[in-house]
Amino acid sequence: MTTAHFLIAIIAILIAAKLFGEIAERLGQPAVLGELIGGAVIGVSGLGLVDPHDPTIHFLAELGVILLLFLIGLETDLKRLIAVGGMSTLVACVGVLLPLLGGLAAGRLLGLSSMVSLFLGAALTATSVGITARVLSDLGHLRDPESQVILGAAVVDDIIGVVLLSVVTSLAIGKDLSYFGITRIVVVAFGFVIAALAAGSWLAPWLMRALKRLQVARGVLFASIVVALGLAYIADRVGSAMIIGSFAAGLVLTRCGGGKEVEREVRDVAQFFIPIFFVSVGAAIDVTSITPRVLMIGLLLAAVGTIGKVFAGFVAWRHGLRKLVIGVGMIPRGEVGLIFAQAGLSSRLLDAGLYSSVALMVIITTFIAPPLLRVMLPPRSAEEYHGTADYVMDAPLDDVTSRAGEHPDTRDHR
Amino acid sequence: MTTAHFLIAIIAILIAAKLFGEIAERLGQPAVLGELIGGAVIGVSGLGLVDPHDPTIHFLAELGVILLLFLIGLETDLKRLIAVGGMSTLVACVGVLLPLLGGLAAGRLLGLSSMVSLFLGAALTATSVGITARVLSDLGHLRDPESQVILGAAVVDDIIGVVLLSVVTSLAIGKDLSYFGITRIVVVAFGFVIAALAAGSWLAPWLMRALKRLQVARGVLFASIVVALGLAYIADRVGSAMIIGSFAAGLVLTRCGGGKEVEREVRDVAQFFIPIFFVSVGAAIDVTSITPRVLMIGLLLAAVGTIGKVFAGFVAWRHGLRKLVIGVGMIPRGEVGLIFAQAGLSSRLLDAGLYSSVALMVIITTFIAPPLLRVMLPPRSAEEYHGTADYVMDAPLDDVTSRAGEHPDTRDHR
Repeated sequence: MTTAHFLIAIIAILIAAKLFGEIAERLGQPAVLGELIGGAVIGVSGLGLVDPHDPTIHFLAELGVILLLFLIGLETDLKRLIAVGGMSTLVACVGVLLPLLGGLAAGRLLGLSSMVSLFLGAALTATSVGITARVLSDLGHLRDPESQVILGAAVVDDIIGVVLLSVVTSLAIGKDLSYFGITRIVVVAFGFVIAALAAGSWLAPWLMRALKRLQVARGVLFASIVVALGLAYIADRVGSAMIIGSFAAGLVLTRCGGGKEVEREVRDVAQFFIPIFFVSVGAAIDVTSITPRVLMIGLLLAAVGTIGKVFAGFVAWRHGLRKLVIGVGMIPRGEVGLIFAQAGLSSRLLDAGLYSSVALMVIITTFIAPPLLRVMLPPRSAEEYHGTADYVMDAPLDDVTSRAGEHPDTRDHR
Repeated sequence: MTTAHFLIAIIAILIAAKLFGEIAERLGQPAVLGELIGGAVIGVSGLGLVDPHDPTIHFLAELGVILLLFLIGLETDLKRLIAVGGMSTLVACVGVLLPLLGGLAAGRLLGLSSMVSLFLGAALTATSVGITARVLSDLGHLRDPESQVILGAAVVDDIIGVVLLSVVTSLAIGKDLSYFGITRIVVVAFGFVIAALAAGSWLAPWLMRALKRLQVARGVLFASIVVALGLAYIADRVGSAMIIGSFAAGLVLTRCGGGKEVEREVRDVAQFFIPIFFVSVGAAIDVTSITPRVLMIGLLLAAVGTIGKVFAGFVAWRHGLRKLVIGVGMIPRGEVGLIFAQAGLSSRLLDAGLYSSVALMVIITTFIAPPLLRVMLPPRSAEEYHGTADYVMDAPLDDVTSRAGEHPDTRDHR
């Protein structure tokens, strides 16, 4: 491909992301859904403007997902998470376990290999916190106790989901499938995050102070991107997933108090790359591969995933909580599900048909949650919402994930 | 190359750009010089971390130079340029003609083909306005009449230089070398800019208003990048240079009054890509190719270029102008010279030796101007400088070009 061809691809990606993202939002759906569909329109079975398997496009998309997880890490408040504590963690664990086992069972029932079935189950585990947080905040219910449980659980199952991803992709490329092998991968993934947090807790503040003292222009922007990409590289080298590395980088920088500044500096660059990831995922969907079987598997996965999360809501033990709200709030899969789909396709674990099934599952679960939440939660006034917004906007996960990195504030300014 | 290899390359590029860029600035030299040397350190004959010929790295660098010219276009005030008017234009034309003819003659003298000699001459034409503007503003002399002539002339010869580049690269890839052929290319290049200005003058305000009315989040960022890349693509298709297209895009958006906003939105993304271009240019320097002959040609080119520009200063006819200051202010070649070098290498017009000679010429001319200006112009107080800063900061060309896109304001905040 020449530079001119790449330019056309990038132009098509940016237009598709914005156009379909905005249409989705006007229809009350998250932007990421629009980006996905926009990708399908310009992708392999659409206009053919973007080849997601081209090394350059693939690398730009990888940069997008690495920076996305970096932003999610930046916005993950470990302290608050520990405070919401037990109930969210329990809801998260049940909400991971049920879809995982359900997906595994469904895959085996369909006659798929245990490896592929495990992968499908794993793809069902992670809640897309962004989509739900966005809907809750639009309805003015972000400060409800149910919402707090949902947000806490979603962050916990994001972490579990990312670790699961590095486990299953390691297994997929033929690594040790014994209990020992799996244990090792889990230990490496969690160990990496813990080691990064430990080392980063004294290195990061020192780095930020040095940059300030030396008055390096745009030092924070460059240093934080270097830290994010550097940890992604190291994570890859030690046998974990790159996104674990950039996620850990985000956690580290937030813990040492630089999160807000780093986020402000990195946001624009990240916003350029993140849509490239989602549009590429959509572009890889081969519409001709969507046979009745693919459709059926997609629906089955969506059903298993939905039922598993709704049940998980019922383990929230405190009296008076609307448990169904919690369960429904955890239905959307969104970006982590798509990361799974893409990883599965790259590692040749998923064929084009199963890839489309997983993408379909993400689209379905993401479509159904917002209207259901709207039925269950009567909208509150905008004033009330704005009055409470600060509380959760400390960790505005919604703006990264649901809008592929859009800041609600920015929107208000226009 | 795998994603991990690309990550290492990007990390190396960002670190080299920042580290060597900052060292250069601490030594009173422009950052772009540091980025160039940093590139050589991590490039083909240094650590070998970055392969500038890899398609992905090459595309990222191209995006960098396209966005650089977009920013330069955004900051080019056509009205003011017309006001400085005749004298700057005359200085610019003489300052283009003398080095062009000098370079051509030098090349022929050395026994090079007329095509290569023409290319070398063309590479000597464009003044790096950024480097001089930065030094003048540091010394508090930015509002001097000499400085205004320099800035005006530098903008004019930037435009001529970019047009020349599209002429010589078109010739290089074997297009028509007749007078008719050359005329056609010049007409296309200027015609493209004029057509873009004409069409853009009513399309761009409409687009900006539509984005505002529709409240598209980050609409300005995405739309202006799409416009810049789109015009670059169209320019390429009609047989001109991509950078002519993005430069025209910048001119258009500034003329319709959106320049400031667009610049603010695009700056961070551009700053990520621009250093990739300069570091790549440095990375392509093969130190083993620097023979005594290469060194000699580099020195000869630098001498021809310097003498040509200094003479050009003397055509500034108004009494009382320090003509030597004007001439010396136009010595640095900087980024456009490097764009020539890179284009010459890509089109196989320059071999590794001549490429290094051109890079050497850029380094030499860029090194000598700042100390000479400091000798001729006694520094004024910082207050005086800040008092006058607004005047030229309307078009803060220095921050884009000399620091590869660094904003002085940002620097002050640290």
